[in-house]
Amino acid sequence: MIGVGVVGYGYWGPNLVRNLADLPNADLRWVCDLQTERLARLRSRYPAVQITEDFANLLADPKVDAIAIATPVSTHFALAMRALRAGKSVFVEKPITATAEQAERLIEEADRRGLVVAVDHTFIHTGAVKKLRELINKDLGEVYYYDSVRVNLGLFQHDVSVMWDLAVHDLAIMDYVLGARPRAVSATGMSHVAGSPENMAYLNLHFDCKLMAHVHVNWLAPVKIRRTLIGGSNKMVVYDDLEPSEKIKVYDRGITLDPMAPKAGERKNQMRIGYRAGDMFAPQLDITEALGSELAEFASCVEKNTKPTADGEAGLRVVRILEAAGQSLAKGGAPVELARESVLA
Amino acid sequence: MIGVGVVGYGYWGPNLVRNLADLPNADLRWVCDLQTERLARLRSRYPAVQITEDFANLLADPKVDAIAIATPVSTHFALAMRALRAGKSVFVEKPITATAEQAERLIEEADRRGLVVAVDHTFIHTGAVKKLRELINKDLGEVYYYDSVRVNLGLFQHDVSVMWDLAVHDLAIMDYVLGARPRAVSATGMSHVAGSPENMAYLNLHFDCKLMAHVHVNWLAPVKIRRTLIGGSNKMVVYDDLEPSEKIKVYDRGITLDPMAPKAGERKNQMRIGYRAGDMFAPQLDITEALGSELAEFASCVEKNTKPTADGEAGLRVVRILEAAGQSLAKGGAPVELARESVLA
Amino acid sequence: MIGVGVVGYGYWGPNLVRNLADLPNADLRWVCDLQTERLARLRSRYPAVQITEDFANLLADPKVDAIAIATPVSTHFALAMRALRAGKSVFVEKPITATAEQAERLIEEADRRGLVVAVDHTFIHTGAVKKLRELINKDLGEVYYYDSVRVNLGLFQHDVSVMWDLAVHDLAIMDYVLGARPRAVSATGMSHVAGSPENMAYLNLHFDCKLMAHVHVNWLAPVKIRRTLIGGSNKMVVYDDLEPSEKIKVYDRGITLDPMAPKAGERKNQMRIGYRAGDMFAPQLDITEALGSELAEFASCVEKNTKPTADGEAGLRVVRILEAAGQSLAKGGAPVELARESVLA
Amino acid sequence: MIGVGVVGYGYWGPNLVRNLADLPNADLRWVCDLQTERLARLRSRYPAVQITEDFANLLADPKVDAIAIATPVSTHFALAMRALRAGKSVFVEKPITATAEQAERLIEEADRRGLVVAVDHTFIHTGAVKKLRELINKDLGEVYYYDSVRVNLGLFQHDVSVMWDLAVHDLAIMDYVLGARPRAVSATGMSHVAGSPENMAYLNLHFDCKLMAHVHVNWLAPVKIRRTLIGGSNKMVVYDDLEPSEKIKVYDRGITLDPMAPKAGERKNQMRIGYRAGDMFAPQLDITEALGSELAEFASCVEKNTKPTADGEAGLRVVRILEAAGQSLAKGGAPVELARESVLA
Repeated sequence: MIGVGVVGYGYWGPNLVRNLADLPNADLRWVCDLQTERLARLRSRYPAVQITEDFANLLADPKVDAIAIATPVSTHFALAMRALRAGKSVFVEKPITATAEQAERLIEEADRRGLVVAVDHTFIHTGAVKKLRELINKDLGEVYYYDSVRVNLGLFQHDVSVMWDLAVHDLAIMDYVLGARPRAVSATGMSHVAGSPENMAYLNLHFDCKLMAHVHVNWLAPVKIRRTLIGGSNKMVVYDDLEPSEKIKVYDRGITLDPMAPKAGERKNQMRIGYRAGDMFAPQLDITEALGSELAEFASCVEKNTKPTADGEAGLRVVRILEAAGQSLAKGGAPVELARESVLA
Repeated sequence: MIGVGVVGYGYWGPNLVRNLADLPNADLRWVCDLQTERLARLRSRYPAVQITEDFANLLADPKVDAIAIATPVSTHFALAMRALRAGKSVFVEKPITATAEQAERLIEEADRRGLVVAVDHTFIHTGAVKKLRELINKDLGEVYYYDSVRVNLGLFQHDVSVMWDLAVHDLAIMDYVLGARPRAVSATGMSHVAGSPENMAYLNLHFDCKLMAHVHVNWLAPVKIRRTLIGGSNKMVVYDDLEPSEKIKVYDRGITLDPMAPKAGERKNQMRIGYRAGDMFAPQLDITEALGSELAEFASCVEKNTKPTADGEAGLRVVRILEAAGQSLAKGGAPVELARESVLA
Repeated sequence: MIGVGVVGYGYWGPNLVRNLADLPNADLRWVCDLQTERLARLRSRYPAVQITEDFANLLADPKVDAIAIATPVSTHFALAMRALRAGKSVFVEKPITATAEQAERLIEEADRRGLVVAVDHTFIHTGAVKKLRELINKDLGEVYYYDSVRVNLGLFQHDVSVMWDLAVHDLAIMDYVLGARPRAVSATGMSHVAGSPENMAYLNLHFDCKLMAHVHVNWLAPVKIRRTLIGGSNKMVVYDDLEPSEKIKVYDRGITLDPMAPKAGERKNQMRIGYRAGDMFAPQLDITEALGSELAEFASCVEKNTKPTADGEAGLRVVRILEAAGQSLAKGGAPVELARESVLA
Repeated sequence: MIGVGVVGYGYWGPNLVRNLADLPNADLRWVCDLQTERLARLRSRYPAVQITEDFANLLADPKVDAIAIATPVSTHFALAMRALRAGKSVFVEKPITATAEQAERLIEEADRRGLVVAVDHTFIHTGAVKKLRELINKDLGEVYYYDSVRVNLGLFQHDVSVMWDLAVHDLAIMDYVLGARPRAVSATGMSHVAGSPENMAYLNLHFDCKLMAHVHVNWLAPVKIRRTLIGGSNKMVVYDDLEPSEKIKVYDRGITLDPMAPKAGERKNQMRIGYRAGDMFAPQLDITEALGSELAEFASCVEKNTKPTADGEAGLRVVRILEAAGQSLAKGGAPVELARESVLA
């Protein structure tokens, strides 16, 4: 059993609170937010939880072992660092920080103190993404491409671009399911509202192998699409997160190569490239709520001092790509190499 | 009534022949192909049409006014130039030529001789694309983006990449429906089969305005997708060519801007960016076969010596983009400026 | 502001409680259930609400004006009658009672005492069904048919058949949107589990006009379908409740009649029956939670002593059809006439 | 190699002619139709085929072994009987005849003369329906229900109702895939155009076992639906004929029965009925054109004097159901028993 405080009770915070309140190995002690009307709503629902506008109260409570941070991205670093320095482990909303350097500092601080840093990459705890990782490891063969479209008509964020709001999901999923790590990233995007960050963007991840990864994110689409195509040398996958029950479809399809008889005047044998089309298969998926499993894992990691699936390093790798994508976008789409070593080292 | 010959009776040629045979203002006189087994099939279906393996027979027939060319891309220029020099107008499969320079030479030759050059951009003659142009001109407001996904598990072409095979359709459609012309193009792609041209690619078209255009083409996708999203300041469109009857859906959706009261410490008023979601509307579309209308227009242009909707210039603009996209791809995705003037001039 | 008690905190009760707790013109005073573990869950969520296993406590509280009943169907009548006799208005889960006679008695009792009887026909308070009623009244012309498929792989109910569980929704919707009242009903169905009520059924409603109404309900379907087709002389509608945003589609389609020239030997002119296919239109729908609106209306009716949209009579009409459908099913599908007058009268 | 004549070159005849022309073991010698403009179209496409308005020419040609009949239903019997009496085998459009008695007479005549009678139940020769039969035989367990929806906005037939036009497909498929034969049929339907046969209908087939079969056919639907749900004790199937590639989906879903501890006061153990939801599987289907396989089988049957898959008996069983359905419809939907023995016997 660990004692937990939550800071931030806006869009995502209520989900953290609801799941933490139901968690057998967590004792939700505090919720902190600056907006009193939000806290009033909380009070009537969870009368046993202490409410405060002062983050210092959470830090001062010796029964608080860990703090979950669901505030705007720009505040993640300062709050998480204060928590770590007070000896509390942290569970931070995605993206973990606003810069890679900040993420590195958090990791360093936590390591020095023997504390846990987790980043809330919720999707990797869904049954669909766990199945995706298993399929990629076992069935797909060489992965040729990963193509994700994540668009809808959505609320524009004031402080972050659509990449930091939506593409972060795809980057977190790819970090989890793909064996390979990208070498560079290029991005193009556009803001259609003066003074506002990009509301649409295309990201290309470049790898040392023949894998292509591409993400389309858009807050200005007429329809909601959440669809990823993954092509492998043996099988292919469509992952459609909006499908109610068949989110993952595995196609036994691919290309075939047959030698052709050389034509007159041709020196070497050519290969005839054909394709094969076989059965499709939609595996039954685990439908446990991802956030619940993720918080249970975090509580267990804090208790046993182990690493969570999405640790600070995972959060850092994703922020490095987002940071580089922003640089590429500013340079008109030129590829930007990704740092592989810490700037702090 | 014009006399017509067809050269190339492979994949697309039979469609040209079937439509020309039914056209009231065309007299289909010859079909030429190098493979005799194809011609045998033709002979039993169209006994009145003359069959030959020698293209010179078409050129020598004074009753032939125009020649339709449905051979591999690499042969378009030579065949079309011979036809023009023999005084015949030409209707050339897409893409019009293998290089922009070749297209310019055909246009020049035709202009000098007062002949018609048409390129077979079939899609722009469909009811769906004609409606798209009308919507963009009248209803959408400022066009923010054009995003097309055209993927399937398809036969690899030996001589051309997936861009020349599939993206050419999107470029032809954009050339027809968008008022703006792109300034530059960038492209990334990959071949997953040694010795074969790219089987997947992403193209970005760059404009002088805030319009973004993006095309994803792929021969290695598990499912067939033909979907274009178009966002405008007033309305948005989904064009799904695989929908049997509702190919075009118009959404009365978009963003709204409301001034917000300035927060303490902020100097200027911020705008709150919201969105509105209204009705959707799927207009009834003209379902006449596009190729029939297109060939009827071509025959009429030859008779009256007028320009077809997709003339040599349209074909040239598309080939210029494909050529620049190939250069960008070779340079790792760096944008390549598009020539606006003839290299011949 | 009215005082409210809820009896039954199983599947649907928590939704009533959540909505009543948020309702400005209701004071949720009591929740009653026989299972203590359910009440424990409730206590931590709503500490201000009084909890009891004894229904008499609700009846005895003079501040309770109305009681919402979300218990098994077989208990509706007894609980509602006790409530009415204690001077409380009632809001009863669908179907209102297990027999038409019971519903008639409740209506009679409430009328005598000037109390409100409402039945929870939730769907008729959704934006989709309200739009359906509007379309039928204004746009569709003469309604030719109403065809609903409501199937899924679902939990079998022990006490009621699939008709009383699922078809009740369609009957409630039809009661609200169609002007006409059925004259008779026929039904076929089957139980595939020994000792269990029917798990699939087909209902036909017979009208005095040319309207056909048909409902297919099934707990044993591999996929979930919630789709209604409505054909009118002017327009047609598809209502798909599983569509996330375009639940209602209006098609400008129908038949056309053109006189044909009489053929040799035919005496009278025949009509050529053709069809026209026009635009499709998906109106934006009100997305307010139906149950909230419904309970707000109920509270207001109790305060002002007015009739709710779904009053006891509406509940009675639906139960009469269900009862007759059960009789038809027992007779192998023969049509059973619907009573139009009270058996009590 | 058999000699073949075709009578009827309207809607379906051209498909017969195209397939017969391509068939290696058939020699298409004659096409007969009463409308000369149709024959003119034919002449230009198939110059080698003899054309006539006089059916007697086909009967008189000793090289004609078989006649394919694609005329209106009301003429099937007379033409087929003339053909049989002239010693020709027959391939008759569905439904085989306008009455069961006519079908019996054709079968009797053919048996007496050792000729082949085939009915064109095209669907049973598709890859999808062949797979359905295989699944029902091997995987589904006890079949609980067969539910088909076959609706669209369609051309009204003047001479036959929607049952004889559309439901005939479902009856032919069920005859082929289900082991059981129906005992009785009930039907309701409506004509919404004065003087026209029914444009919508619902059919229930009654069996001696717990199988339910239901068909909804409609010419007045706003959208096209071709979907069959089949529930079995082990697996369930969705067959959607409009799906381009995944027409058959097999769901590993069903109900489970667990004994429950008896409650106080209950004598016997109750069963808790739950459900299990497992993987879905879409087998790759044979995509050969059904009509081609069917005609090849017919030609082979004529050569070897064997029975085709859909012989006269299959045609008769389907017509018996259609005839009884018409009687049920006239009686307001009362079930009508199906004759199992010949009226001629």
